[in-house]
Amino acid sequence: MTSTDLQATIAHMGAAARAAATKMAAASTASKNEALRALARLLRGDSAPLAEANARDIAAAEAAGLAAPLVDRLRLTPKVLATVAEGCDQIAAMPDPVGEITNLRRRPTGISVGQMRVPLGVFGMIYESRPNVTIEAASLAIKSGNACILRGGSEAIHSNLALWKLVQAALDEAGLPRDGVQLVQTTDRAAVGFLIQSPESVDVIIPRGGKSLIERISREAKVPVIKHLDGNCHTFVDATADLDLAVRVTDNAKTQKYSPCNATESLLVHEAVAAAFLPRIGAVFAAKGVEMRGDAASVALLSKVPGANVVAATEQDWSEEYLAAIISVKVVSGIDEAIAHVNRYGSHHTDAILTEHHSNAMRFLREVDSASVMVNASTRFADGFEYGLGAEIGISTDKFHARGPVGLEGLTSMKWVVLGQGEVRQ
Amino acid sequence: MTSTDLQATIAHMGAAARAAATKMAAASTASKNEALRALARLLRGDSAPLAEANARDIAAAEAAGLAAPLVDRLRLTPKVLATVAEGCDQIAAMPDPVGEITNLRRRPTGISVGQMRVPLGVFGMIYESRPNVTIEAASLAIKSGNACILRGGSEAIHSNLALWKLVQAALDEAGLPRDGVQLVQTTDRAAVGFLIQSPESVDVIIPRGGKSLIERISREAKVPVIKHLDGNCHTFVDATADLDLAVRVTDNAKTQKYSPCNATESLLVHEAVAAAFLPRIGAVFAAKGVEMRGDAASVALLSKVPGANVVAATEQDWSEEYLAAIISVKVVSGIDEAIAHVNRYGSHHTDAILTEHHSNAMRFLREVDSASVMVNASTRFADGFEYGLGAEIGISTDKFHARGPVGLEGLTSMKWVVLGQGEVRQ
Repeated sequence: MTSTDLQATIAHMGAAARAAATKMAAASTASKNEALRALARLLRGDSAPLAEANARDIAAAEAAGLAAPLVDRLRLTPKVLATVAEGCDQIAAMPDPVGEITNLRRRPTGISVGQMRVPLGVFGMIYESRPNVTIEAASLAIKSGNACILRGGSEAIHSNLALWKLVQAALDEAGLPRDGVQLVQTTDRAAVGFLIQSPESVDVIIPRGGKSLIERISREAKVPVIKHLDGNCHTFVDATADLDLAVRVTDNAKTQKYSPCNATESLLVHEAVAAAFLPRIGAVFAAKGVEMRGDAASVALLSKVPGANVVAATEQDWSEEYLAAIISVKVVSGIDEAIAHVNRYGSHHTDAILTEHHSNAMRFLREVDSASVMVNASTRFADGFEYGLGAEIGISTDKFHARGPVGLEGLTSMKWVVLGQGEVRQ
Repeated sequence: MTSTDLQATIAHMGAAARAAATKMAAASTASKNEALRALARLLRGDSAPLAEANARDIAAAEAAGLAAPLVDRLRLTPKVLATVAEGCDQIAAMPDPVGEITNLRRRPTGISVGQMRVPLGVFGMIYESRPNVTIEAASLAIKSGNACILRGGSEAIHSNLALWKLVQAALDEAGLPRDGVQLVQTTDRAAVGFLIQSPESVDVIIPRGGKSLIERISREAKVPVIKHLDGNCHTFVDATADLDLAVRVTDNAKTQKYSPCNATESLLVHEAVAAAFLPRIGAVFAAKGVEMRGDAASVALLSKVPGANVVAATEQDWSEEYLAAIISVKVVSGIDEAIAHVNRYGSHHTDAILTEHHSNAMRFLREVDSASVMVNASTRFADGFEYGLGAEIGISTDKFHARGPVGLEGLTSMKWVVLGQGEVRQ
């Protein structure tokens, strides 16, 4: 396809999405839930076409020499399909966010003023590898009353097409417009460029993938972007922390999985408990092969731990998102230094304080400028499912519109409604 | 000042604002209210310095041959000062939006998850002529816990500087950082360019002024912009409208003031009541000298009205924001055509239905994709004060983040808070 043809194709999809958005926004809760349950049923049904499409992607990926973990991400195993089908049913069971009216209050003039939750309109979703995102994005679009244009990775194109056909069938079954969920069917990368520069047909772009993809999209987009950048998350062990709890939570926050963005990358310890706490958590990390990069005070304590892999941290370490079995460690003088350190070096994603001191807990909650702030809990909880959003279209590291895990509500906005009895302005 | 010096100045202001934002965000409600009440007191105090500064701006404007209405906008009359002082007191009396925690709910894992309202951080305000905006923006920044950088019009520079000195004194008195509210003290237009391209120090830009200013800023900004573009507002008179009410409300919506963005620019009338309604409203418009630009059906009815200035509407008229004594008029076949017309030609600002038909009222509220949708009320009510926001930093015609009048809440966002007792992720 020529560049002009591709641009025309994207423009055509955009216009169709804009038209479908009106119908999606006005769709009844019953029909949206019907589409979601139909989609769940189809995902649980005849798996042969999905398996065949998926096998083509996997064969191509293996032939191209893609690394094994990346090939694994492509796999639509029965377990993956069961999980996304279950996700559709869960979203069907959630309350409809659209049409909710809040704060409807009488004003002195006689009019009643409130806010109604409405869909954003059309979102564009740009994602890599995992084909299950096709279903997650489609199901969130359907429930939130938005139209969407999906652009998955080229390595998953056959799987995405096969999944999208199920979405089309589900929309049909519920009487919703097929153009409510569209999939870019070419793997030409230029399609992304056209999509993110179409404010007339796209209200927001949600990229999911590597940092370079997200940075490029943010830089070039002419529509708002829900960005998900780094997760340099901190756990701060305060002077009054329950140290058993602190060992358990810090261990979980760092080692339960190394690759998620909500894993703790940096440990701050109050100087009053450093000598009691660091050798204990150091032993846990040593046993699990976690490298510790510390300031002088923590290195002094941690290097005595048998088997510990301890090195001196550089200034760069405080800003690092390792996504690996590495943690930076710093002894701090108290809550003030901890908050200042987190706000300076953190990525405003997720940070936790472990403390029994109520006022310190409240200060940390208020003053740490991150999308998720926690008291006595593992940073690994920062997740749409764990927060009860039913699903998550992404995690925002921005402050505008939505922060942290973005679910159905993040795909809506509030418009004003005014109910009068013929009032006029004086 | 050279371009490099100016860039350094703006960068320095940005860094100072970023540092002050932390203190503004953590400021107690009492100290924020103290600053606001001190500001109100100072505005009501010795008016000589303000009068002198304002006289300099007015003399310069008159010498430059500025049109009389534009010179009038510059005037800090006793009435204007009393109004902005009253505004500061009103904002002081409002609940503090910062720190509000909502929807704190226990999850099956044991953690409690909710959302806390927090300031956005630093906003940049770019505005023209009226110097009272300096006080409105400063007072909203103080109450919402944001830092701000203000950039007023060059024609009001002395007035803005004099008002800003009062803001500095009020911040001092309450122990809040002076850098919490900064004013760009040069009239060099390049300052705007640097300000809107500083994501490291500015979280959102709010432009207030002409369409060309806002479009330029939106195009060039590298930070989110709360845009206020056209107000092509509609009033739709449905078949079941109370016609006395409809005459009163339509008259108010169009003629109470011609220049505001929430004035009705287009009148849609159900064909069933066109013959009864149009001659009545036509007589009102004729008496007030309002030009009517109609489709064939409305021209046929309106041209019989004695003294009416009626012409045939062109396609362009349906999209026009006149801000003048002109209204476009169209007879429609019913609610479907009315909604489709508003969504196609309107600017998604404010639109009203006048009806006694409950289901049509609800459909209009749900399906018209505008920042404010109204039933049986004048579109002129779309305003932060009328909505009870206490003040208004702008009116957003975007869907992302905030729609319609933006008050204190529009300058905040919600972060997630998690309260645990040592829970870990499985």
